[in-house]
This record gives sequence, C-alpha cells and structure tokens, in this order.
Amino acid sequence: MTLPTTPPALRMPVLVDCDTGIDDAVALLYLLASDAVEIVGITTVGGNAPARLCALNTLRVLALVGRTDIPVAVGAERPFLAEPLPHSADVHGIDGMGDTDLEPADESLLDPRSALALIDDLSRRYDGRLRILATGALTNLALAVRADPELVSRVADVVVMGGAAEVPGNRTPAAEANILHDPEGAAVALSAGWPVALVPLDVTMTELLTDEHRERLAASGTRVGTFVAAITDHYVGFYTERFGRRVAPCHDALAAAVLTGEVLPTVFPRIRVEVEYGSGPARGATVCDTRGRYVGNPDQTDALCRVALETPGGFADALVDRLLTLQ
Amino acid sequence: MTLPTTPPALRMPVLVDCDTGIDDAVALLYLLASDAVEIVGITTVGGNAPARLCALNTLRVLALVGRTDIPVAVGAERPFLAEPLPHSADVHGIDGMGDTDLEPADESLLDPRSALALIDDLSRRYDGRLRILATGALTNLALAVRADPELVSRVADVVVMGGAAEVPGNRTPAAEANILHDPEGAAVALSAGWPVALVPLDVTMTELLTDEHRERLAASGTRVGTFVAAITDHYVGFYTERFGRRVAPCHDALAAAVLTGEVLPTVFPRIRVEVEYGSGPARGATVCDTRGRYVGNPDQTDALCRVALETPGGFADALVDRLLTLQ
Repeated sequence: MTLPTTPPALRMPVLVDCDTGIDDAVALLYLLASDAVEIVGITTVGGNAPARLCALNTLRVLALVGRTDIPVAVGAERPFLAEPLPHSADVHGIDGMGDTDLEPADESLLDPRSALALIDDLSRRYDGRLRILATGALTNLALAVRADPELVSRVADVVVMGGAAEVPGNRTPAAEANILHDPEGAAVALSAGWPVALVPLDVTMTELLTDEHRERLAASGTRVGTFVAAITDHYVGFYTERFGRRVAPCHDALAAAVLTGEVLPTVFPRIRVEVEYGSGPARGATVCDTRGRYVGNPDQTDALCRVALETPGGFADALVDRLLTLQ
Repeated sequence: MTLPTTPPALRMPVLVDCDTGIDDAVALLYLLASDAVEIVGITTVGGNAPARLCALNTLRVLALVGRTDIPVAVGAERPFLAEPLPHSADVHGIDGMGDTDLEPADESLLDPRSALALIDDLSRRYDGRLRILATGALTNLALAVRADPELVSRVADVVVMGGAAEVPGNRTPAAEANILHDPEGAAVALSAGWPVALVPLDVTMTELLTDEHRERLAASGTRVGTFVAAITDHYVGFYTERFGRRVAPCHDALAAAVLTGEVLPTVFPRIRVEVEYGSGPARGATVCDTRGRYVGNPDQTDALCRVALETPGGFADALVDRLLTLQ
C-alpha cells in the first residue's frame, strides 16, 4: 500500500467495531488509505455474517494491503437480549463478502483477546483520544460500557453508521439493520454518555456507488480496486431492486468519512435520540427529535448525539479516488 | 349562511368524528360552506378537550351558521386502553375554543343518542355512501367497528387527520396527538378494512394560517370571519414557539379538503401503515412503509391506506376564501 505521510503516532487512533460485510470492508480500506487516522484495532459483531466470519473477512481485507499487524478480535456473536436476526446473506453474500471466492484468511492471525479485552486495552493505551467507528450492531459497545462505566471517559467519541431519522428503515419500515439487530444494545450504547455522531440512512441512502465507480476501480488494475469492484457486484445487485437501477449506498464508508472529517454533514444537529426496543412495528427505530426543524434549527444543545441529516453529495467519487491511492 | 347550490340530497354524506377544538371548528365551517358535502352527523371524542365539551363546542359552531339541525352526539370520553393524556389546553385553551368567552351552548340540543348509535344509524341511512372525517382520537371508530364488523361495508371511506410519516410527531418526537391519545384505538380503526386516507403532519405542518389570513377574516365583518379570527388567536399564539413566527397549521381543515377533493395531494401513495402501541419512545407512531420512494414510487397496491405526503400548498388562502362565503 501507499504509505500515508503523517506518522502513525500523530494520527487519530481509531477502533473499528464492525461486521465485515461488503461496505464495512470498503470503510476499512477507506480508513487504511487515510492520512488522518490510524486503525489501532478492530472488533467484530454478528450481523451481516457471524462475528467470527466477520473477523476472518476483516483479516482478508487487511491482508490485501499488508496490514495484518492490526489486531482483530472476535466480539459478540448474538445480541444482548433479542433473538438473533438472520444474517444478511441477501445483501452481503453467504460469506459476507459477496461470494467472490476470496482466499481464506489465516485464522491464526486473529487476536487471542476478546473484543471487550481489546476495547479495554486500546481505551487505556489511547486514554481520552480513542475514537470508535461502529458499523455493525452495537452489542460490543453496550457490553463494554456496562462492564466498565469508566470506559466512557477514556473514549473521545463514537461514530455510528445506523438508524433512520426522517426516512424509512431498511430492514423494516421503521428500523435500520444495525439498530434492529440489537435494539436493547443500541439503546445502551447510544445513551452511554460519550459523544455520539449518528450517520443514518437519511444520508447513507443518498451517497451512491454506481457501476461507473466500480468500472473505474476495476480498470485501475490495483489489487484494492479489483477487490472492491468484485465484492460490490453482489452488493449493487441487491440494491438494484431498492433503487430501480444499479447503485448501492456507501453506508459504512460514509460514516468513516464523517469520522475523519472528510465529509462534513451540512445538517448535523445535536438532537435527542431514543431507541425503540418494544416488540411492536417500530422496534429498532431511532426516534430522533427533529421538531426544531420547524424553526429552522433542530439543535438541542443538551443532547450528546449529533445526527447527520444531510451530506454535501459526491462522496462516492471521493471514495473511489481514495481507494485508488492504495495498490 | 349562504346556502350551497347543490341540493343536500345530492351531496356526499359526511359524518365528522372530532374533538372540537379550534382547528376542528374551522374544518366544520369549511365543510358547512362546501357545495360538495353534507354533514349528516357529528360525534365527539375526548382529546383537545373532554368529549362532552367538544360536543358543546360543536354546537356553538353550528349555532353560528344556523345549522343546529345537524345531530351532535357525545362519544368516548377516554381511550380504549391507554391512560388518558391531559387535554390540549395549551393549544386550544381551557374551553377548547381559545378561551374567547363564547356564549355557552344549549345543552338540550345535544343528540340523545350515543356516538356509536348515531354512527350506526347514519351508516344504515347512507349505506355504502357514508364518508367519515376523523379529526380526533380514533376511539369511537375503533369501538364502532369492533361492536359491528359489518359497519366497514356500509362506510365508503374514512379520512383521518393524524399521524406522522416522514416527519417528527408533535405530542412526542415520534407521535402526533390524535394517534397518541389512543394508539390501541388507532391501530384498530386504521386496519379495520375500510379505505383510509391519512392526512398526517407531513402535510398539515406545511399549510399554514398566518395573521394576514386572520386579519382578512376579521376585516370581513362576517360572523364566521370574526369568530375564526378570534378563536385562532390563541392557536397561532401556541404555534408561534413551534414555528418561530405567528403561523399555525390548518390540520383538520386540510383533512376536510382532502375529503372533499378540493385538495389533491401531489404525493398520495397507498402504503401499509402500522400504529406502534408499545410503551417505548415510539408509542403512537404511525409506521409508514415509504421505502418505495427510493424507486420513485412508494405505492403498495395491496394497501388500503393512502397517505398524503405532499400537498400543493396555498390551502390557507383557499380556506379563508371559503370561510368568507359564510355570513
């Protein structure tokens, strides 16, 4: 890979908690190519695929760019309280990576620690500076914060791809998949007391990867370009029915770009967010109090959560540009 | 009042189920001035004020235009299952009519029948033609349809002011007041099997009455103009905080205009609607499956509910014009 020019020690330390997953893989590659952040550890959670498989998929992504030095720990296989939902093979393939016959990962490279132990270690090593990007169900973060309430003070902030504020859900009419996988866990993790930036479907469904983007990636002849073009074929195929054309949302990569600051949401208010975890039709909804919009300012200054409601657009172009800096 | 020119027998028979209420009063006057519909009965429900007071307020409105011949029956004072919410004195005043020292109504003019008996009678008299406009909690309709499932076949359709599809609620971040007053009742009434048109906050919060409208009404010197200008002072006052300027939504009157067809929503898909009646933060939410928007067409052809998601605008002007045809 092309080495970023900022020394790793000066970059923002980021822990990624994910369920790799096609768009998780793209988000990881986006961050690995960033000069602004250093991924210091990765934990996985069941969601797009089983947590252990997500960890192996993560190793495949890291191997692609020679970064298997980053610790990858397997986290919660199932939600805290809820019955597990089926994995999202329709979106991500049975292997979670678009069923593209990737080489198997070297399981011996998995970190021997549990996800919670890795989170604990990293939060102490990067005390007060550690940033967390969460692109899967929020089970690991909920468990970690309940296991050690002081974790909150050692984490700078948490950026979450998840939820739906003023648009319908995707897994159900009310709920986005990451939140619906573990609504009880999400309720705990989002209200833990750390600053949260929520990157919901309101914005991720507007930043779309097209076949033209995929062709640029494939034509580059780079390992990463070829890889991303391949794994996103299945992903775009799934979303074709949702959008009526061959496009797919950049869900997790957009959240990664909000974390690095390379995407600045144009509407990004602090608002109170509550997760519905009842058993009714709104289960998994992120209830966002956006009523301030009627006075032109949804900001609730006492809220710890910022919600991205609009982004500038054009992110998929920037994403492809960034991925093409990798080999 | 100026008599409409279409003979009453040729107009669409409409039963109004309401909680009068300032905007209910305006909706009633709008319909009373319409050449297209004939109000054949009015039932009330607790909400903006107690159900009995709502009925008396309704009589005051009818007296204003010499139409106390229309039967007004008191309906459910409390929700089916839920604890009653406080009445909306902040929005509608303690008397439900903006505390403008209106003359008391003649209680002897109340119909002796219960609301359910009146609904039953009217549904048989106008079998298959009766249209219902519901501008309050849906308790009466839920009770009526459970008491007699065949009622559904005698009703042409139900137009409901209520809910919030892709915007926040008003009574809570998730819920609109009419639905939140009786979520269990709303779940029953909206899924009864009759065709429903839902007129939610998505559109009612965009059609705004201003002080200029109120001045036009007041300057007309008509009884109705003076009355509506007076009662909407409190209402606009309440909404000033919500909008940051002296305006108020035409909630119930807009639903009345959707019923008459004088407002044709520009986005009005058939979509599945489920009411959340759990005890969590989404209680009272109308979960609307608008995911078809991503393919440019949210229509679900098997759904019995149409949801007004956009209206053309300019309704408050038309409303004032209409009200000024009354004396």
